Amino acid sequence: MSIKVKILGSNSAAPAHKRNQTSQLLTIEGHLYLMDCGEGTQLQLKRYRVPIQRINNIFISHLHGDHYLGIMGLLSTMHLMGRKKPLNLYGPPGLAEIITLQLKYSETVFNYQVNFHPVDTKANKLIHEDDFIRVYTIPLNHRIPCAGFLFAEKPKKRRIIKDKIPEGFSVKNIIKLKNGEDIYDGDGNIIFHHTQMTLPPKRVYKYAFCSDTKYDESIIPIIQDADMLYHETTFMEEHEDRAANTYHSTTKQAATIAKKANVGMLLMGHFSIRYKELEPLKYEAQSIFPNSHLAIEGEDFILDDIS
Amino acid sequence: MSIKVKILGSNSAAPAHKRNQTSQLLTIEGHLYLMDCGEGTQLQLKRYRVPIQRINNIFISHLHGDHYLGIMGLLSTMHLMGRKKPLNLYGPPGLAEIITLQLKYSETVFNYQVNFHPVDTKANKLIHEDDFIRVYTIPLNHRIPCAGFLFAEKPKKRRIIKDKIPEGFSVKNIIKLKNGEDIYDGDGNIIFHHTQMTLPPKRVYKYAFCSDTKYDESIIPIIQDADMLYHETTFMEEHEDRAANTYHSTTKQAATIAKKANVGMLLMGHFSIRYKELEPLKYEAQSIFPNSHLAIEGEDFILDDIS
Repeated sequence: MSIKVKILGSNSAAPAHKRNQTSQLLTIEGHLYLMDCGEGTQLQLKRYRVPIQRINNIFISHLHGDHYLGIMGLLSTMHLMGRKKPLNLYGPPGLAEIITLQLKYSETVFNYQVNFHPVDTKANKLIHEDDFIRVYTIPLNHRIPCAGFLFAEKPKKRRIIKDKIPEGFSVKNIIKLKNGEDIYDGDGNIIFHHTQMTLPPKRVYKYAFCSDTKYDESIIPIIQDADMLYHETTFMEEHEDRAANTYHSTTKQAATIAKKANVGMLLMGHFSIRYKELEPLKYEAQSIFPNSHLAIEGEDFILDDIS
Repeated sequence: MSIKVKILGSNSAAPAHKRNQTSQLLTIEGHLYLMDCGEGTQLQLKRYRVPIQRINNIFISHLHGDHYLGIMGLLSTMHLMGRKKPLNLYGPPGLAEIITLQLKYSETVFNYQVNFHPVDTKANKLIHEDDFIRVYTIPLNHRIPCAGFLFAEKPKKRRIIKDKIPEGFSVKNIIKLKNGEDIYDGDGNIIFHHTQMTLPPKRVYKYAFCSDTKYDESIIPIIQDADMLYHETTFMEEHEDRAANTYHSTTKQAATIAKKANVGMLLMGHFSIRYKELEPLKYEAQSIFPNSHLAIEGEDFILDDIS
């Protein structure tokens, strides 16, 4: 599959109604990325049998406790379980200071390197790139510095048609075909056309994670046409004033952003503890943007090319 | 009842085998005291339907994450749920710095006062006193500064025999009887003997909480004759070397301390994640101190005068 988002927590402020605080696990081509890490996230990862040492990149949107208080415990458990591999941690500058202070008082030095990458929450910048994705910050409008993250898959290689590959065909030539190059003989004649031996690349997807924000259309150009948008929906429409005062969004506001940005689907979360039942929130969002879904713990949302 | 200890978590280092990290709730005459607060303690309190706003005193033994990483989330939830009542927080000096830094970056000011009482982990001192108990520090021998806590009930009042109290008897006189005073008439003659109208006070209990420590007999005079001792038993006897190196104790070491200190019962906890089954640890401790019990999550251990 291309992108899988597993919901580890979707409640705001305090855990309630058996809903944990914000955290999501992204799987891209088998690689794991963690977004936000509320208290108890390591328990959720355990519950869903996620191999935590395979997480190499963690992104923290902001320093309200419900989005990061689980990070210290998770990093400590990685250490205690013998991690040696470096880990990239992206978040607001204060995060490093908080972690460093806690390590100082516990007189602990991790056995692995935490590469901390301070994030400029006011800029839309490329902050991470690996073989599979590019990650960009999305400046959000919250009470404290806060950035969302846009995960954009990198262009993929063409797909080999196995039946078309003759025996003894070299790996080097396979790589050429995957890159869309033809194979020539010594005299410069084409002997294998890449279009005959490969299928076009699978399409690429974009996932935008907007954790805590008030309604703000300035994010639209950044998230435009994303295949999936997570946008917080802390409140229902009746509490629009409260949403504005606390720098949060309503269901309809999130759905309006989704519609204006022409995204493929909307994932709703960061629900206020006042809502035990979440269906009414979904109906409100769907009245504006039909392809709206609740981020329910344990559920997977998959973007994939089934062609 | 006199003293009830509810186990909220009993695992060491990282949560495992469905065991959370260290935390215990003490109920004394209906008043709630929290000892240590590993990650997820607020979820455990919720699970066991503990009214968190009735906790007015929290004691943190040391600054290893498995003993305190849940404190920030718990204090935040108390704030979000509208707490106004001050809260006493006892712990190593660094704890205030960690909390203050986290509040700074979340740009949050609690609606209630947290009275922080830095604890001298090297001294055996009275650190808290209220109508019901006195709490003393127990210097422990751990890798970083660490103190246990001795909870000693204060002497109780005599118990009124309701049938013996005539109608219209004044509250003032009842208080006198409870305090062991007789009631005189205007001429100085005894009209009511307190021994005839009251029963002796209920007995008082002592509970000693020794979170993380290597084997160290210097705590014995402090915990001598305690009715219940919680003493960590991270390892079984075969890992005695590892216990010493990591400043932890084995089952038999804890049981030896219990025996030498002549306590009423031993509560074992802080189990290494290597142990999925805990019964073997219990049998080892019981071979030295028969009244040894496992601190299993959700269980209550009660000290009460049933006479």
